[in-house]
Amino acid sequence: MGLADVVRPETARRTNRAIVLEHIHQHGELARADLTQLLGLNRSTIASVIADLVGLGLVSERVPARSDGVGRPSHLVGPRSDGPYVIAVEIDADHVTTSAVGLGGEVLSRDDHDLRPHDTGSIAVADRILADAATIEREVPPGAFLVGVGVSLPGTVRIGDEVVVQAPNLGWRDEPFHELLATRFPPWIPIRLANDADVGAMAEHLRGAARGASDAIYLIGKIGVGAGMIVDGKALTGAGGLAGEVGHMVLDPAGPVCRCGSNGCMEALVGEAALLRASGWLRPPTRHAVAQVVEAARLGEPAARAGIAQVGSALGLAIANLVNLLNPEVVILGGSLAPILELGATSIEAQLDRHAMAGPRGMVSLRTPGLGEDSSLIGAAELAFQPLLADPYGTVQLRLA
Amino acid sequence: MGLADVVRPETARRTNRAIVLEHIHQHGELARADLTQLLGLNRSTIASVIADLVGLGLVSERVPARSDGVGRPSHLVGPRSDGPYVIAVEIDADHVTTSAVGLGGEVLSRDDHDLRPHDTGSIAVADRILADAATIEREVPPGAFLVGVGVSLPGTVRIGDEVVVQAPNLGWRDEPFHELLATRFPPWIPIRLANDADVGAMAEHLRGAARGASDAIYLIGKIGVGAGMIVDGKALTGAGGLAGEVGHMVLDPAGPVCRCGSNGCMEALVGEAALLRASGWLRPPTRHAVAQVVEAARLGEPAARAGIAQVGSALGLAIANLVNLLNPEVVILGGSLAPILELGATSIEAQLDRHAMAGPRGMVSLRTPGLGEDSSLIGAAELAFQPLLADPYGTVQLRLA
Repeated sequence: MGLADVVRPETARRTNRAIVLEHIHQHGELARADLTQLLGLNRSTIASVIADLVGLGLVSERVPARSDGVGRPSHLVGPRSDGPYVIAVEIDADHVTTSAVGLGGEVLSRDDHDLRPHDTGSIAVADRILADAATIEREVPPGAFLVGVGVSLPGTVRIGDEVVVQAPNLGWRDEPFHELLATRFPPWIPIRLANDADVGAMAEHLRGAARGASDAIYLIGKIGVGAGMIVDGKALTGAGGLAGEVGHMVLDPAGPVCRCGSNGCMEALVGEAALLRASGWLRPPTRHAVAQVVEAARLGEPAARAGIAQVGSALGLAIANLVNLLNPEVVILGGSLAPILELGATSIEAQLDRHAMAGPRGMVSLRTPGLGEDSSLIGAAELAFQPLLADPYGTVQLRLA
Repeated sequence: MGLADVVRPETARRTNRAIVLEHIHQHGELARADLTQLLGLNRSTIASVIADLVGLGLVSERVPARSDGVGRPSHLVGPRSDGPYVIAVEIDADHVTTSAVGLGGEVLSRDDHDLRPHDTGSIAVADRILADAATIEREVPPGAFLVGVGVSLPGTVRIGDEVVVQAPNLGWRDEPFHELLATRFPPWIPIRLANDADVGAMAEHLRGAARGASDAIYLIGKIGVGAGMIVDGKALTGAGGLAGEVGHMVLDPAGPVCRCGSNGCMEALVGEAALLRASGWLRPPTRHAVAQVVEAARLGEPAARAGIAQVGSALGLAIANLVNLLNPEVVILGGSLAPILELGATSIEAQLDRHAMAGPRGMVSLRTPGLGEDSSLIGAAELAFQPLLADPYGTVQLRLA
């Protein structure tokens, strides 16, 4: 319990407002009576908090159709469809997705663009996002208002100034990308950047395959391999926001050379290039090569199946190390790791049985993402909603000031 | 922000009482004025909270010697010397330490016993603790009262029922050790068990080499190797309390066989047996063998120095994996790992430079324990104080009921 937990009576109303809004954002429309019961607040407190949130244009109330029960049915409170929305962006090595997401998590509109190799510079990407955001803003319901921008990217973001320390697949190093975006959006719009695996973990925890789990790990395979970790219900960031570099966990000091200069890193054994190599892929590693290898394995092609088994085995060893260390309930395998779980579960589980301790081994389940390929995009939206959810009044006031 | 954060006015007084007591426990005697300022509470709130704590017999106030300043000096509030104390126990493979620790962390008295091989059964150990606690209770100040028992042990403890899932060096498996102790102490005394590395991490974070760090790892080397992790200021327990089995992180699939049946686990490469083997130790691995090897290395004996360097190298690789994954500010090396840091820092750092990513590598510092060999014992005391610190009134009332 830290100093921040000292209770000052004047903060109670602000805190309750934030909690009720977060609840509606996470669970969607709810009966006022259920909110009262769920949160353990009395009816008059809930009524005044809801009145505040309605006044801010964030939620709306409606009377439900007459129920069978006796007495007045409880009002329903839900996100206002022409209320707040965020711009959520997912940047990949060769692709940018920009979307508008409403309170409650509904994707209102989205725009996908491939990035050509010479378009991955930080200024070009920032311009791309601004142009797509402008297109998307024309598609949201009239009256809806922007409350934040969230960006998922394949790199590490420093806590504090949100400088992108490195994003090797974009060729970025120490890029002040937050600053680049901030000059392109109105000054009252909060902008947040984070690592793709970190926001993917957040989204899977809130709305996907790790919902309800206290401890979960989301692994994402692309060219690199990243991890987002949930510990006791919260994101594990590390001291500087740089945690989750699981791709460079050494699994075999005698293993293949990694892009980082070391040997036998997880990335060098289970990343996309490793899968292609293990499957005997001889053509250039284009964007769709991994999909083709997976399709071949699904059809029973021996080299592709052997590749999946080999990568699955290394992946199982890596997961065993994580299970021993962190004792998660759920490990979610996303990106190129999802088909390895679908087609190579036997190889993964065999290594897990061999290297994980019986106690934590018995508690963990391996899953593919509940949000399919959108975990990081939805996670970017959650990131963008954080300032509003933490302080609904302050965030809306900033816009009106 | 979860449901537990909903603010109910009636809980404010209870919360403030707990926070003030925790502050005094952590920092020792403080001026009333400093407490007021530190906690951001007003003077009348602090006065009434302190009056509550004095009434419960937990703290005492005194007027300081006249200062040079103008006006009345602020009263000093501190732990009451004949106030609450805990029994803190550290169980090792061949040793039990039982101690009495007062509020504020002062060790009032301690009793050490070697365990003979046939004395490590759970009933024998529980009886030993009870006998030592009885001796120790005669040495605490008259009027002091027991508020909790905390036990550190070399094994994993399940959250909830606190069954010792496994403690291989004691030969325990699924031992209901909490129950065994509960029948030996008065029913109103809360008893807490935890893993030695976990409580060592807690103590080093509160009072030792990781003080003030948000993210820290405490590694302890004995026959096995364990990890206690602090993430964002809190202990990382995992879903079932089983996190921290770093000893079975595989560092080299072609490495030596481990006691767990796997190959190349961290424990098999950096534990006490590995150090003795790498140093060419030919005599039986007695309790003091590691100390002799360390002493030989200190004196420049070549085989011992080579052993330290070899183990240091594997240790550096393990730390690199942890740094990449968790981005800690501090990694503390305790037990048999402390002399490896003192004498083999070059080997450790070389592997860290090679395998850790530049970002998190630049943020981490390696340290020996601030509490020397007592990290786990002090941690057991902190564990035992938790119920009192969380609910001073309720815990004292239980005793008086």
